[in-house]
Amino acid sequence: MRSIDLNADLGEGFGVWRMGDDDAMLKLVTSANIACGFHAGDPEIMARSFRAAREAGVAVGAHVSFPDLAGFGRRALAMSPAEIEHAVAYQIGAAQALARLAEHKISYVKAHGALANLAERDAKVAQAIAEAVAKVDPSLTLLAIAKSEQGPAGAKAGLKLAQEIFADRAYAEDGRLAPRSEEGAVLHDPQVVVARVLSMLEKSAIVTRSGARLPTPIDSICVHGDTQGAVAIARALRDALQAGGWRLQSFAAS
Amino acid sequence: MRSIDLNADLGEGFGVWRMGDDDAMLKLVTSANIACGFHAGDPEIMARSFRAAREAGVAVGAHVSFPDLAGFGRRALAMSPAEIEHAVAYQIGAAQALARLAEHKISYVKAHGALANLAERDAKVAQAIAEAVAKVDPSLTLLAIAKSEQGPAGAKAGLKLAQEIFADRAYAEDGRLAPRSEEGAVLHDPQVVVARVLSMLEKSAIVTRSGARLPTPIDSICVHGDTQGAVAIARALRDALQAGGWRLQSFAAS
Amino acid sequence: MRSIDLNADLGEGFGVWRMGDDDAMLKLVTSANIACGFHAGDPEIMARSFRAAREAGVAVGAHVSFPDLAGFGRRALAMSPAEIEHAVAYQIGAAQALARLAEHKISYVKAHGALANLAERDAKVAQAIAEAVAKVDPSLTLLAIAKSEQGPAGAKAGLKLAQEIFADRAYAEDGRLAPRSEEGAVLHDPQVVVARVLSMLEKSAIVTRSGARLPTPIDSICVHGDTQGAVAIARALRDALQAGGWRLQSFAAS
Amino acid sequence: MRSIDLNADLGEGFGVWRMGDDDAMLKLVTSANIACGFHAGDPEIMARSFRAAREAGVAVGAHVSFPDLAGFGRRALAMSPAEIEHAVAYQIGAAQALARLAEHKISYVKAHGALANLAERDAKVAQAIAEAVAKVDPSLTLLAIAKSEQGPAGAKAGLKLAQEIFADRAYAEDGRLAPRSEEGAVLHDPQVVVARVLSMLEKSAIVTRSGARLPTPIDSICVHGDTQGAVAIARALRDALQAGGWRLQSFAAS
Repeated sequence: MRSIDLNADLGEGFGVWRMGDDDAMLKLVTSANIACGFHAGDPEIMARSFRAAREAGVAVGAHVSFPDLAGFGRRALAMSPAEIEHAVAYQIGAAQALARLAEHKISYVKAHGALANLAERDAKVAQAIAEAVAKVDPSLTLLAIAKSEQGPAGAKAGLKLAQEIFADRAYAEDGRLAPRSEEGAVLHDPQVVVARVLSMLEKSAIVTRSGARLPTPIDSICVHGDTQGAVAIARALRDALQAGGWRLQSFAAS
Repeated sequence: MRSIDLNADLGEGFGVWRMGDDDAMLKLVTSANIACGFHAGDPEIMARSFRAAREAGVAVGAHVSFPDLAGFGRRALAMSPAEIEHAVAYQIGAAQALARLAEHKISYVKAHGALANLAERDAKVAQAIAEAVAKVDPSLTLLAIAKSEQGPAGAKAGLKLAQEIFADRAYAEDGRLAPRSEEGAVLHDPQVVVARVLSMLEKSAIVTRSGARLPTPIDSICVHGDTQGAVAIARALRDALQAGGWRLQSFAAS
Repeated sequence: MRSIDLNADLGEGFGVWRMGDDDAMLKLVTSANIACGFHAGDPEIMARSFRAAREAGVAVGAHVSFPDLAGFGRRALAMSPAEIEHAVAYQIGAAQALARLAEHKISYVKAHGALANLAERDAKVAQAIAEAVAKVDPSLTLLAIAKSEQGPAGAKAGLKLAQEIFADRAYAEDGRLAPRSEEGAVLHDPQVVVARVLSMLEKSAIVTRSGARLPTPIDSICVHGDTQGAVAIARALRDALQAGGWRLQSFAAS
Repeated sequence: MRSIDLNADLGEGFGVWRMGDDDAMLKLVTSANIACGFHAGDPEIMARSFRAAREAGVAVGAHVSFPDLAGFGRRALAMSPAEIEHAVAYQIGAAQALARLAEHKISYVKAHGALANLAERDAKVAQAIAEAVAKVDPSLTLLAIAKSEQGPAGAKAGLKLAQEIFADRAYAEDGRLAPRSEEGAVLHDPQVVVARVLSMLEKSAIVTRSGARLPTPIDSICVHGDTQGAVAIARALRDALQAGGWRLQSFAAS
């Protein structure tokens, strides 16, 4: 039976503030990207998220970011590759310790926001992230944007790779995510999202806006937890995948 | 040959700011307590400190604190034991990851500032710290204030313990540190400091202001790196200890 | 016609995070306490809140706090009266500037969270706050907890005073707020809230849990914007006040 | 008698950390740019700096920055002009309030670090800063980099302008500061610095690296307080200016 992973960003509150419906999402996804305190999250929220994920049988990853709570990690910071490597290592270590406290275990690392956007196109940033992962714990998987610079960087660093596509984001002709600022860059109709994801999985390819196919391994599908209708889209996708003969399972489980 | 450890707080800058003469201290101490980003330190400074300590052959510990950069961790925060446990775990993990990047290894944990002051007297706080250490990595040593609540808490958590005295701080009759606000609470004369430390080591006891002896194992001597004359005191102490037949060696080395 | 003010805490988001239904509350209250970036709020949220309050015809105050975003200003910080005075002045000035940008005007200052709790009982803290207000702008009103140390402190500093009661909080026999941790300290039933507030206004007295009356001027009623049912309580209270012959008007308007 | 202003960045510590020798610089300069908590400074340091400047008879300005303590305001943040306007207004207001507490008065605004670099070339950023100043307090002077976009932006906003040159920085042929990364971009020899400044003042022109003259009004000379030898350069410059018949006086004094 074919298997696929569903991942979502969770634990994205800070202090008294919350974002998204983590409880609902934990019933739907197989991997949870947990914020590490740099764009969101704090030790309390991290500990609670790791416990909840363990109880739900959901794999967890360190969701690493530029240090920017005020901007939710969505603003690129002028940091050198070495500075990025150190910042990423810091977050992985913090996440590993709190996962251990919750009797869970970090199985992968994923970049968030502006750091992920940079890592998609900038080989030096992608390498800094991959180096940090490999040096802190070479048994961790790098959850990489498919067709991005993260793939080669992870391979060069000797890491296990999982490649993800985005359920609700349109792809430009070069296989990169269409910028959110463009019309139609974010998909909201669950039926459209489901049909498109199933098509990409069947073809093992990214399907661009024009319909072109860009072949790539696909190990995981990213669903958002923070947008309106996110839970409905995740549920529709999960149901359709199971109906289509896909076993939902973390890439880290095999 | 008898051995003793000298420890000091290092890496206590933040961003562009620096504190103390880390390079000089690394030539004198055998253990460096590295700030983890909560009272001081950031990923850059941590990485640099771990590398410098490795090159100097100095053992490193995670110097954990309340989250309070603005107050340098010297203000008690109303945090529950569970919150303290999570905050401590976060810092240990971050420090372990950056030490690994620098090809060094965290061998112990020490509480800083207001957190240490609380842990001296409050068994619940001491236990929260010890629990965090034990759950994140039970092979770590707890560097505890001698005669404090940290000793029993560490023992209960099954941790290896190292007990420290303070080279330049006066002791009250109950074996607790005299508050800094009191006259004479901080000693500045290297000769006085040296004589007192040697006396405590010989007797394996804390010597209080009145001259009373409170027996305790002593594994380490804390010298400050941030006060005027700190380097001179550390050097005088190191020389006197070696002249007195003590081998300077990290408690973590044996 | 008798007039009374309704105040609520607004603008208590940070970065991408939001709290409460500010739009709904702005249609109900006559004064909005705007967070100044220390427990919540940032320049963007402040600017937006001041503009929305101006458009709604709602008076605005600087809602000043200990610097503690991670704890939402609910944790007391060990700060000296001088430090509190400086921190409060900083926030008032920042709020004044952003209100001016939004073509609105700060008319009062109110303490938030742990700072308000301290100012209720600690005359030195109350004085530090009042001094900051008086030195930055003596034309500002101090919105004080009725029967607290803030009243005498404000009077001593020569400030205009507005005294507030809390719509949904039980009062202990000494006229202080019952701690949130106590059973029944927070009232949730709109009918109970309304009846109690009307009774206190009629008697110009705080009514304690046992029913005792503690006479005090009452210039404003604080309704919460962040708790479940807050909007419903505020609306019920507003309707009942108007039906009872009270004109809803900011204390700063007269 | 011709008059000229000497300005320097002061109050650039944070919490326990300090930068530069503020006491020495206050005896030499006529205007002090005080950090407002975004790149450095906190309410304590600001209050102390304003008091010290008042006692020294030195004019004070709000030294506004991107919000980036960790990067000392030296990293450009992706903020919109509206966000910059709000952030600048926040800092001006906070500085005005603390200056008032110290019985001093903000007389000008100057941009710091990456914000200043952007404002030198980007008209929208320059306008956002000028708009913030004009809306918060149109009586404030804008201390602008000579030959930069700040001049036209300040004029358009109706602000009084003071134009500054940098004592220790080389100028490219277009009148912009040579990037610090370039060889010779920062001058260290007091004699070279002094001769160059006197020459620029005499000619009322920026003198570029090649010796070309770019005419501009010059109202102030910026000396650095944080670099090695800064105090010596400032003293040499002050002495040479006085010997050359220049009265040292803040542009805000006239």
